[in-house]
Amino acid sequence: MAKMNSRKVLLSWGSGGSSMHQLIKEVLLKKLNNPVLAELADSARLTLRGRMAFSTDSFVVSPLFFPGGDIGKLAVCGTANDLVMLGAVPEYLSLAFIVEEGLDLALLERIVDSISRQAKSSRIKIVTGDFKVVEKGACDKIFINTSGIGRIVADSDLSARSIRPTDKIIITGNIGRHGLSVLAKRKGLDFGFNIKSDCAALGDLLLPILKKVQIKFMRDPTRGGVATTLNEIAQACSLQMLIEERNLPVSSQVKAAGELLGIEPLYIANEGIAVVICAAGDAGRVLSQLKRHPLGRRARIVGEVRKGRAGGVILKTVMGAQRLLDMSSGEALPRIC
Amino acid sequence: MAKMNSRKVLLSWGSGGSSMHQLIKEVLLKKLNNPVLAELADSARLTLRGRMAFSTDSFVVSPLFFPGGDIGKLAVCGTANDLVMLGAVPEYLSLAFIVEEGLDLALLERIVDSISRQAKSSRIKIVTGDFKVVEKGACDKIFINTSGIGRIVADSDLSARSIRPTDKIIITGNIGRHGLSVLAKRKGLDFGFNIKSDCAALGDLLLPILKKVQIKFMRDPTRGGVATTLNEIAQACSLQMLIEERNLPVSSQVKAAGELLGIEPLYIANEGIAVVICAAGDAGRVLSQLKRHPLGRRARIVGEVRKGRAGGVILKTVMGAQRLLDMSSGEALPRIC
Repeated sequence: MAKMNSRKVLLSWGSGGSSMHQLIKEVLLKKLNNPVLAELADSARLTLRGRMAFSTDSFVVSPLFFPGGDIGKLAVCGTANDLVMLGAVPEYLSLAFIVEEGLDLALLERIVDSISRQAKSSRIKIVTGDFKVVEKGACDKIFINTSGIGRIVADSDLSARSIRPTDKIIITGNIGRHGLSVLAKRKGLDFGFNIKSDCAALGDLLLPILKKVQIKFMRDPTRGGVATTLNEIAQACSLQMLIEERNLPVSSQVKAAGELLGIEPLYIANEGIAVVICAAGDAGRVLSQLKRHPLGRRARIVGEVRKGRAGGVILKTVMGAQRLLDMSSGEALPRIC
Repeated sequence: MAKMNSRKVLLSWGSGGSSMHQLIKEVLLKKLNNPVLAELADSARLTLRGRMAFSTDSFVVSPLFFPGGDIGKLAVCGTANDLVMLGAVPEYLSLAFIVEEGLDLALLERIVDSISRQAKSSRIKIVTGDFKVVEKGACDKIFINTSGIGRIVADSDLSARSIRPTDKIIITGNIGRHGLSVLAKRKGLDFGFNIKSDCAALGDLLLPILKKVQIKFMRDPTRGGVATTLNEIAQACSLQMLIEERNLPVSSQVKAAGELLGIEPLYIANEGIAVVICAAGDAGRVLSQLKRHPLGRRARIVGEVRKGRAGGVILKTVMGAQRLLDMSSGEALPRIC
């Protein structure tokens, strides 16, 4: 437990003086310790060579803790995954807190612990950071921004422009878990079963495959869900995505909870799966590679790319009907990540 | 003016669906346009070679607009300056918004305009971003995080470890302006004169000098002011900093306003000056180089490094007395940046 002069976060801890230094030393450096961060400069010095990916995300999820994850784990995985989607090994992360005055120090410590654990297990170095405190009521508990730098290891650019008709669309795991987990916890919903967020870092699942089979494009279907991500891809390559409902990897619990709430799993945010597109001839190998990793055991080929109305996504339902799957208009679920 | 379906920011604009895409296209891409950002991937692809600096800062300043700047200008300059302090040319910036539901779209547009102008004038590319909306009351209007990557051009590491006794301490411009400007605007104080924030990007002032004269260390005295920064430096090099009060660059207005409020200018945040340390024999040349640039016209040699009590900062007052200048304990001024 950190030796601070209060067990609640004080405004003065964000004001650049001795209390902020104490907080940084007692809480952040102890848990996130690495030589670059310990320099305590305003910037980190890194030696980088070659093609890099750079990404940022702010995390405002509410509640802060939910089955399968918390804002800290999410903040590491979310930015790491954005780098992985470009075929990059996440290497360095920045970490910036905005904290509400009066937050329990113990809560902050739990979050920093979670960040530390996830960064370690994903072999990402947290090399620079920032800590701001705002007065009570000026933010809801804690917001975290992470920005990341990754080394691109994919030989070819993973670009929607390389997508062609007949390419296969793979989803690497069960859909709809993260959004439902957060929503159930926030609203105190009891479905009679527990839905765990899929929150996970995807580098170890996806990056080794890039060296073995050619993947054309990857994107993690976070806010807006699989349907929105597929629409983004369809727009970017001006081709049609045809999805077979019966092939979608979705648990019976997520299906049931989605039906109860009137939300389609295809529109629910995920934090530990990817949409992967590859040539039809490579799809079997990609799938078998995915299934070797615990995070890819439920991977499925869910559909294929077609010529046709530019930018559209078509869902072929279990009943055989076809319907247009629009992009989410975004009303459903605020503060899911 | 952007063609959005509302003149107030809606929760749905942060939820990853079509309204968020429209916002990104209509507001952000239009104003910040560059080819990397226009790819609309979750990460940016960059080719980087060699020693780089990486930094992050979240900006929560209140009010959002103040004499001499606004949260947008601050968000670009603040992170850029952190890179410059390591001798790096700021090249790439990420930009992440957390916006309160109901914020005037026109206000957001003014802020994005300011970001765009400052990034252009500082020749920094905004290459990746994020946009979150939280419900009314969950944040105070708008918070911005920027993270930056810069190419280190300094030949030697700018490190406090290279500081030696007799080295000179230079301050590049008038102190205390930013904090007082924000505070006066926030509290509606009328001093009978206007104090403008010094908010500015320091790259053009400082980076060219690094190629001409050897600078040992630089840091921008933001939160906690010059006194806190000098204490950080003194601790890092285990030497004493002796400052001559009569040499401090401070305007009569800042002096008067500080006296009225009972705040010493040495503890007030700055956003457009640096503390620069160099060998005594180089100080004259550093000073004359600084004075050639509009941002350095008021640069002064304010003191020197001494053997002595490790970690201390001594102020020699105008009256000839010496007193210990402690690090700010941080009570004074929240949300100054």
